[in-house]
Amino acid sequence: MPSLRAHVFRVPADGPDDVSLVEALFADRIDVGNVVAVLGKTEGNGCVNDFTRGYATQSFERLFGKHNVEGVSIIMSGGTEGALSPHWTVFAREQVNEPGEGALAIGVARTAALPPEHLGRREQVCMVAAAVTEAIRDAGIEDVADVHFVQIKCPLLTSQRIADAEAAGKTTATRDTLKSMALSRGASALGVAVALGELEIDAIADSDICSRFDLYSRCASASAGVELLDHEIIVLGMSAKWSGPLAIDHAVMHDAIDTRSVRAAWERLPADGKLAAVLAKAEPDPSGQVGGRRHTMLNDSDIAGTRHARAFVGGVLAGIFGMTDLYVSGGAEHQGPPGGGPVAIIVEKEI
Amino acid sequence: MPSLRAHVFRVPADGPDDVSLVEALFADRIDVGNVVAVLGKTEGNGCVNDFTRGYATQSFERLFGKHNVEGVSIIMSGGTEGALSPHWTVFAREQVNEPGEGALAIGVARTAALPPEHLGRREQVCMVAAAVTEAIRDAGIEDVADVHFVQIKCPLLTSQRIADAEAAGKTTATRDTLKSMALSRGASALGVAVALGELEIDAIADSDICSRFDLYSRCASASAGVELLDHEIIVLGMSAKWSGPLAIDHAVMHDAIDTRSVRAAWERLPADGKLAAVLAKAEPDPSGQVGGRRHTMLNDSDIAGTRHARAFVGGVLAGIFGMTDLYVSGGAEHQGPPGGGPVAIIVEKEI
Amino acid sequence: MPSLRAHVFRVPADGPDDVSLVEALFADRIDVGNVVAVLGKTEGNGCVNDFTRGYATQSFERLFGKHNVEGVSIIMSGGTEGALSPHWTVFAREQVNEPGEGALAIGVARTAALPPEHLGRREQVCMVAAAVTEAIRDAGIEDVADVHFVQIKCPLLTSQRIADAEAAGKTTATRDTLKSMALSRGASALGVAVALGELEIDAIADSDICSRFDLYSRCASASAGVELLDHEIIVLGMSAKWSGPLAIDHAVMHDAIDTRSVRAAWERLPADGKLAAVLAKAEPDPSGQVGGRRHTMLNDSDIAGTRHARAFVGGVLAGIFGMTDLYVSGGAEHQGPPGGGPVAIIVEKEI
Amino acid sequence: MPSLRAHVFRVPADGPDDVSLVEALFADRIDVGNVVAVLGKTEGNGCVNDFTRGYATQSFERLFGKHNVEGVSIIMSGGTEGALSPHWTVFAREQVNEPGEGALAIGVARTAALPPEHLGRREQVCMVAAAVTEAIRDAGIEDVADVHFVQIKCPLLTSQRIADAEAAGKTTATRDTLKSMALSRGASALGVAVALGELEIDAIADSDICSRFDLYSRCASASAGVELLDHEIIVLGMSAKWSGPLAIDHAVMHDAIDTRSVRAAWERLPADGKLAAVLAKAEPDPSGQVGGRRHTMLNDSDIAGTRHARAFVGGVLAGIFGMTDLYVSGGAEHQGPPGGGPVAIIVEKEI
Repeated sequence: MPSLRAHVFRVPADGPDDVSLVEALFADRIDVGNVVAVLGKTEGNGCVNDFTRGYATQSFERLFGKHNVEGVSIIMSGGTEGALSPHWTVFAREQVNEPGEGALAIGVARTAALPPEHLGRREQVCMVAAAVTEAIRDAGIEDVADVHFVQIKCPLLTSQRIADAEAAGKTTATRDTLKSMALSRGASALGVAVALGELEIDAIADSDICSRFDLYSRCASASAGVELLDHEIIVLGMSAKWSGPLAIDHAVMHDAIDTRSVRAAWERLPADGKLAAVLAKAEPDPSGQVGGRRHTMLNDSDIAGTRHARAFVGGVLAGIFGMTDLYVSGGAEHQGPPGGGPVAIIVEKEI
Repeated sequence: MPSLRAHVFRVPADGPDDVSLVEALFADRIDVGNVVAVLGKTEGNGCVNDFTRGYATQSFERLFGKHNVEGVSIIMSGGTEGALSPHWTVFAREQVNEPGEGALAIGVARTAALPPEHLGRREQVCMVAAAVTEAIRDAGIEDVADVHFVQIKCPLLTSQRIADAEAAGKTTATRDTLKSMALSRGASALGVAVALGELEIDAIADSDICSRFDLYSRCASASAGVELLDHEIIVLGMSAKWSGPLAIDHAVMHDAIDTRSVRAAWERLPADGKLAAVLAKAEPDPSGQVGGRRHTMLNDSDIAGTRHARAFVGGVLAGIFGMTDLYVSGGAEHQGPPGGGPVAIIVEKEI
Repeated sequence: MPSLRAHVFRVPADGPDDVSLVEALFADRIDVGNVVAVLGKTEGNGCVNDFTRGYATQSFERLFGKHNVEGVSIIMSGGTEGALSPHWTVFAREQVNEPGEGALAIGVARTAALPPEHLGRREQVCMVAAAVTEAIRDAGIEDVADVHFVQIKCPLLTSQRIADAEAAGKTTATRDTLKSMALSRGASALGVAVALGELEIDAIADSDICSRFDLYSRCASASAGVELLDHEIIVLGMSAKWSGPLAIDHAVMHDAIDTRSVRAAWERLPADGKLAAVLAKAEPDPSGQVGGRRHTMLNDSDIAGTRHARAFVGGVLAGIFGMTDLYVSGGAEHQGPPGGGPVAIIVEKEI
Repeated sequence: MPSLRAHVFRVPADGPDDVSLVEALFADRIDVGNVVAVLGKTEGNGCVNDFTRGYATQSFERLFGKHNVEGVSIIMSGGTEGALSPHWTVFAREQVNEPGEGALAIGVARTAALPPEHLGRREQVCMVAAAVTEAIRDAGIEDVADVHFVQIKCPLLTSQRIADAEAAGKTTATRDTLKSMALSRGASALGVAVALGELEIDAIADSDICSRFDLYSRCASASAGVELLDHEIIVLGMSAKWSGPLAIDHAVMHDAIDTRSVRAAWERLPADGKLAAVLAKAEPDPSGQVGGRRHTMLNDSDIAGTRHARAFVGGVLAGIFGMTDLYVSGGAEHQGPPGGGPVAIIVEKEI
């Protein structure tokens, strides 16, 4: 009986438009038609005016267009602060003639365009929840407990989009463009929590979004970008229908220096495994403190708090894993507990 | 036979002018007249226009002035990026009626004002080397191998100081004010290396400063600040003439993710010790890579590379030590190997 | 019959702690006891973590303390972007034995500390309105039409203040510290409008603050700073009870490039007058456009919009007045029409 | 006898990839095959890691590729600080059956790739001088006095390019990537001065580049970008061989607030002309002062001096011309006198 098999490749990027090493993969390592998603860390500021995400997306569209491949989910997260290294993680899947044995499973989905006035409100939560459920089904994961990471790329508000909504007689949840990124990530993460049964949709009010941070998903990861209007969703988990050497688990960091949870998750994975990818969220602790000591990330008007958080948590994780091409994404509203965040670890067993 | 005893207090700061918890120490924990130095991490950008250093210095001058105490070495290092926490580390020493048993020793010294045209040149190296030797003697350390950390606060060039020098017919080593901070730190570090016998002064040319990074000191730490024109020097090491529960050792990180060296140094210290202070230097790896992967710190025109490096190495060290009030100072030119830096660890044995 | 006479001195500053040229004034130009206010432009970012304001304030407190003078209103506005030049404007008043003839009048007032939960709400509007009325009376201005500039220094929320309020069971108007600066400036400006009879207090709801920008004062100027908890108010206008060579008028810029209004106001003043001071507010146009063309100030996550606006409007005004030591303060919520702002011009007639 | 006719279109851009309004021009206003150059202001930081230039360039390459047009010179200058507005200026030329009468003339040229070790040195000066001469010939301008603006896009050094050069045993003029932008602009500007007979090549030493600012061209404008390795050159001037309603003149601003020179140049152009384009250079005055007062642009480690200068001079010029879609480019080394810069004005006579 055939099964599905996942492939994960971590590839360096020399710039937002450097897709050369991904193209090289297509020559001998992977069939371009099997690629389902590309997760990228690009070197912009990860905030509103980060055009490296759009530039990278345009570059990948050209690449896949050249190969006449459509529908690949391209998720770019800006920000490689500190020693974090710009890179692409390519996810592919293929059918193989081997029995399912329990392995990394990948599912994807995409929503319709989000009206600007729904951003950061319950409508966005519901829209995302439905699509996550669809992506879990696409992955062939039967028990939501086997879901370890849900990556969502979500839209943001620009001055123009706010003006358009207001011209149409609507009000948006905020007029602050940077704030809209947080609201969009937060509502998306709550959508994951609803899909995974962690929260009931009825328990979430508009005013809870980016406010009641005791409501969260243990494995949501959301990035907002100016270059899309809908949501792109990738679900990673374990499924008995999949085979191959890849396995995933995840930790929930309880604060920015919670290395214990991360080491424990890594130890649950095969001991002889080679790291295939580490995917994490980071945010400035909204309490203003880490480990009982004040931090200054939220009072810094020169550097966005998300940039501080990526650099710092990037350092914490690089110290553990000994590598810097980690996918550390900023802004973890409702993604793990306040000040903490999910960390997914994918390893490849030696065969 | 009497000995000297060192005290080290790590105290939180609510802002550059918040010296209240240091003042509280004077009430019951420490005689203000015994204080020899205050090392501070303040929350500015750590670069040219970081006025938090001067503001904190002015605040401490007021505090010590109120107690009629003069001559305390006040060294402020700007930059608490990531979750690093603004704090003061107070160093004091007193004579006690107990025999010397080998413990943390502290010595201080101060140079004359540095003419702007000497900054970043051999003249600065020589000036610093002489003062470090004087501080080692002040600490009662007999073997330079027992020196574990030499902290130097050094001046920088402002547009005004450059103009003054040029008006006087002199040329400065650079006209770039941010670059002058690097040159000053670099020349100071080489001065430490000369004092510790790590390098011969004759082996150092003007053009080597901030250029030949294979020349370095294993335990120099220099911070440049706009608020002083001379150098303040603090030497930390072990001496048989000192007693008490404090001990120090140091590691040399070979790159920004070299956790192994740091753990090894910590293990050389008493196992039951409580962390009293961690003092470290960090810098963007001049090779443009960490662990074989590209970093973007040196190409980022929005955030100075030193800020990136503090945030990231702050994360690496906070992950190891489980605390965020670490003294991580940026710009490690000639302070440890390129891309790495010294890390001093002070522990207090349980008694 | 005696009258009051105002003095205005514009003095360069070499740094936030350089009060030397103000001290020099006390030697021969002005009696320190006659100083009522110092308005400063300091070189910080003008946002939450701008410690140059507190540093300058501390420096002036030391200076006035040395002269045993109390109660001088010290208002520091951070941000000298572009070619704007850090400087102090010293306002003094004295009684003279000459008849009142109509001249620049200065009045001051100070409120109680603002509870954090009142910031950005009607309570703050009312508190400020009462104090502005008091300052107008202090200036001896009988007709509010003769008021040309009301400068207010107002508090902001820090993470700590928000936490304190929440611990006391209160909610603050925002949890975003940078946003709190806007709310505080906006509520203060509306307080001016109420005091000047431009708006009725009953016409202002909490939700209008920083939202209904059609509500504004034609001559309010507010700056928020971390270093105070109350409000400091300075009123400038014309009064028949005052004498001397100084006169003031003001323009309302309707957008960032409205030079016509500024030139017209200048022309209403004595033609042979020497510029004593120019005081202006600037903000990124909330419409996202200036003169029908998109600007990017509100989408820039690297540089706060207020910094952009000060630099640009600083350029516009420096082009008109031919000098760069202008008091251009950022964040003009309810201070003039959206995207515009008040500009006060003080000239000294040749005698 | 036929002549050439220039067309200049100023077109708003909604983002670095928004070329829609340029495409719209091709439908009815201009033959795409006649386009010779696009000058763009994009909304990045204008410094090393400004990817908006490359993103815009890629977007235009796609656009022209779709129309099978090659060889258009695409010059992107990053930075729309203050209220400056992102826009494209499209330059086209066509042959018409009307006699030459003296009108705006446009010429273009391109160099070979610049070896990294030549950047910022005499080799770059010579390479650019030769190409400028070629572009003047291409424009049909016979007297260099009729050249009013020479726009050059030049390369910069990245960490990678420096490493490559060093691996090949070469040394680069600097290892500081931001500094390399200044050196490249400076050497390019000196190349213009040589081509225009303003300076002799023999009078320029390597060490003069970005150091002896008394050497300059009155109408050079250079922008450095990461996205090219060679130089793209556009020459604008008046030629008797050209016809049509467009005319150009230029001013040299002597400092950042020299409005008099700009107004004088504008007055030399036809009084009834409509502004077609304004092209200017701006830089922080290297003296540290404007109009005798200190500025802080060179001591700001949070915002690059070029960003400050664009915002401020953008304000000065927008105040004069009453529009914000000005091409103000930062970094004016050897482009006009220190602290000043050239300003070209193109007007279209009413017909």
